[in-house]
Amino acid sequence: MRMYDLITKKKNGDALTKEEISFIVNGFTNGSIPDYQMSAFLMAVCLKGMNLEETIDLTMAMVHSGDVLDLSPIAGKKADKHSTGGVGDKTSLIVGPMVAALGVPVAKMSGRGLGHTGGTIDKLESFPGFSVSLSDQEFFDNVNRMKLAIIGQTANLAPADKKMYALRDVTATVNNYSLIASSIMSKKIAAGSDVIVLDVKVGSGAFMKTLEEAEELAKVMVQIGTGVGRETYAVLSDMGQPLGNYVGNSLEVREAIDTLKGDGPADLLEASVSLATYMLLGAGRATSVDEAEKLLLGTIEDGSALKKLAEFVEAQGGDASYVWNPDKFPRTEFIEEMISAEDGYVAEILTDEIGMTSLVLGGGRETKESEIDYSVGIRIWKKVGDYVRKGESLARLYGNDVAKLKAAAPRLMNAYRLSSERVEAPKHVMGIVTKDGVKRF
Amino acid sequence: MRMYDLITKKKNGDALTKEEISFIVNGFTNGSIPDYQMSAFLMAVCLKGMNLEETIDLTMAMVHSGDVLDLSPIAGKKADKHSTGGVGDKTSLIVGPMVAALGVPVAKMSGRGLGHTGGTIDKLESFPGFSVSLSDQEFFDNVNRMKLAIIGQTANLAPADKKMYALRDVTATVNNYSLIASSIMSKKIAAGSDVIVLDVKVGSGAFMKTLEEAEELAKVMVQIGTGVGRETYAVLSDMGQPLGNYVGNSLEVREAIDTLKGDGPADLLEASVSLATYMLLGAGRATSVDEAEKLLLGTIEDGSALKKLAEFVEAQGGDASYVWNPDKFPRTEFIEEMISAEDGYVAEILTDEIGMTSLVLGGGRETKESEIDYSVGIRIWKKVGDYVRKGESLARLYGNDVAKLKAAAPRLMNAYRLSSERVEAPKHVMGIVTKDGVKRF
Repeated sequence: MRMYDLITKKKNGDALTKEEISFIVNGFTNGSIPDYQMSAFLMAVCLKGMNLEETIDLTMAMVHSGDVLDLSPIAGKKADKHSTGGVGDKTSLIVGPMVAALGVPVAKMSGRGLGHTGGTIDKLESFPGFSVSLSDQEFFDNVNRMKLAIIGQTANLAPADKKMYALRDVTATVNNYSLIASSIMSKKIAAGSDVIVLDVKVGSGAFMKTLEEAEELAKVMVQIGTGVGRETYAVLSDMGQPLGNYVGNSLEVREAIDTLKGDGPADLLEASVSLATYMLLGAGRATSVDEAEKLLLGTIEDGSALKKLAEFVEAQGGDASYVWNPDKFPRTEFIEEMISAEDGYVAEILTDEIGMTSLVLGGGRETKESEIDYSVGIRIWKKVGDYVRKGESLARLYGNDVAKLKAAAPRLMNAYRLSSERVEAPKHVMGIVTKDGVKRF
Repeated sequence: MRMYDLITKKKNGDALTKEEISFIVNGFTNGSIPDYQMSAFLMAVCLKGMNLEETIDLTMAMVHSGDVLDLSPIAGKKADKHSTGGVGDKTSLIVGPMVAALGVPVAKMSGRGLGHTGGTIDKLESFPGFSVSLSDQEFFDNVNRMKLAIIGQTANLAPADKKMYALRDVTATVNNYSLIASSIMSKKIAAGSDVIVLDVKVGSGAFMKTLEEAEELAKVMVQIGTGVGRETYAVLSDMGQPLGNYVGNSLEVREAIDTLKGDGPADLLEASVSLATYMLLGAGRATSVDEAEKLLLGTIEDGSALKKLAEFVEAQGGDASYVWNPDKFPRTEFIEEMISAEDGYVAEILTDEIGMTSLVLGGGRETKESEIDYSVGIRIWKKVGDYVRKGESLARLYGNDVAKLKAAAPRLMNAYRLSSERVEAPKHVMGIVTKDGVKRF
């Protein structure tokens, strides 16, 4: 087999066989296929596409390029969720405890934030003492005992994807559904859960700008997961503005706690319940959406989800007293209100800019080595559709450094666009994709 | 300007500006744009195309990546010809003397053969003492004095093309009209002649397999040349079988001499006169095809073209007595007739296989360092359309090495396909492309 011939085949629009795709992925990973051939191939894929069978073969070739987690020491059907990346997205902190409180095991491997989106692990590390470094045995034991553990990514999952993504990122070959879907799914499949619920974000702050694009990507991912025997669902959710009202690590943890107490914002609750619903359905813990929602809201009403969060934080070395008394989280030295200079309806909030505001305040990482300030962030007062009067605050910045606050303020103001005409508040969950089809809301 | 954005632009099918194309060509040539970005770009060009303006800009950016010959010390309009590569193609040895005999200066830079096609320089070096290493001054003086000189490629012509071609060759990004046309034209334009006549080969032994493809490539090249102020023409000629009856260096020189004496095969004469006709028209030495043909055939009838060949060989240090007495060229130790095992019409001669047969006999180069045996080669007795009887010879091999002859014989036999049905002898010149349009014959 020669890479040249396989590039030609794809360039001509022909489908590759499983063996051919394995040859490409393995050869590129071990270095026998050079970057310049791979990038020509990737461009041909972007312009000629891959069919579903090829996409599944590509995904599995990437899965087998590295470690594949064996979660069989954990009893029951394991459920996992994955978000394509959003700002203010603290759903893992809500969904994990709710689902675990209902007895469904969640054995999650999670990432740190980079750039304008935060990571679940960074948020969890707001709890003093919290650690994501568990041994395999501790990880399995914790999930078996209390159904929830979250660790950092230690295993070498899908190294082919990592190397391919780095090349795609510099050769303008990122935006192809098969390549994006196989990149995401290879890591989730290697991470071992039986049920995979994807949160596919749509809008200005997401990689998929339109509902049609998000739906197409979701379909491909659900087909891949289903094709390799995982119960796979996708929730299409709005990222035209940040999720919930807080952005910043400990601020988001507090909002998650509020939500588990029944005091969270509607969009965040809706997002969390949707994701958790499909985790329950996939794991066989509920047989209908209505039943699942009822069970999940029950874990909030009876306090079992909040208790689960505390139990989980403590099991991983964190100070669980913060769950019961969130005022213990450190406050920032400064707060600053972002005053609107005009009247109007909030027509748009540039999500990326809100994420960048948090980064500039010190809440995120510009590089992998950056230190994080867990306490800084943003309280969003006005969301899309809200009316704001001149002199009212759009948002509040929390900061510990005057210079950083000064740099952050114009970014925040720049994120808001007001309109004199009434604007509808957007729906948060816009659709669901299952193996049986698409349901739009 | 960022290469990433330019790859994206081409991937989206948009046209690039002159500045953008220069940025790419210069960056790739100086190494600031890495291979893996260039190959992704080239694949996007293959799949999305370039318009004429882009193709001209690409050509000129490659021209300016290296030396550009200044032929202004040579008086008059200089005419050059270029073949896209064929087997048995000795037209330069015929066209050069004919055109020069009519007073049109031919200042030619030529190449050596590699692989299955021979090079004009190798053929000329069959003359003992012949040298293609002239100083610039000698080159100019020779052309001014007697209108003809041929030198080896010493100048650094279009290094961007060389580097791009090497990458295209391993990334399956060769076959795009804009890329092929700009690659050929950049070198011809840098070589400085005012009139460029292209011999675009069509058929099994050529890069362009069909007349439509050859015509399309020819059109693009003529548009490029015309667009940058060169008189450019293309002759579309059949390479469904070797040109003329001989393949091999000194054998081809002898056939060229025969042709200049009026004893050449019809296809070779037709090819040579066609190419030379457009050199005369471009240089203003004739005003119609009929006039040009009459003038050219006159140089054969009055012996002036043969005399010009002898004068040219002598001026470059070669022994011109070989022109007047071709039997002086060394004969091979062995000859072997390739006997047909059946009756039939010759339906096909695989041109590449004939080229490879000559290579195997020792007449070509497998690598740049290979030594050439000038005397070996093939005498083709039966061409497409000819009837052959069982026991008749299809071709004769000339060799100096029994082992090489043994290896060459099956290749030659494999090149012939006979048919029991009558086969038409193909036309040799199939069409002409000028700036005013296409004329098919």
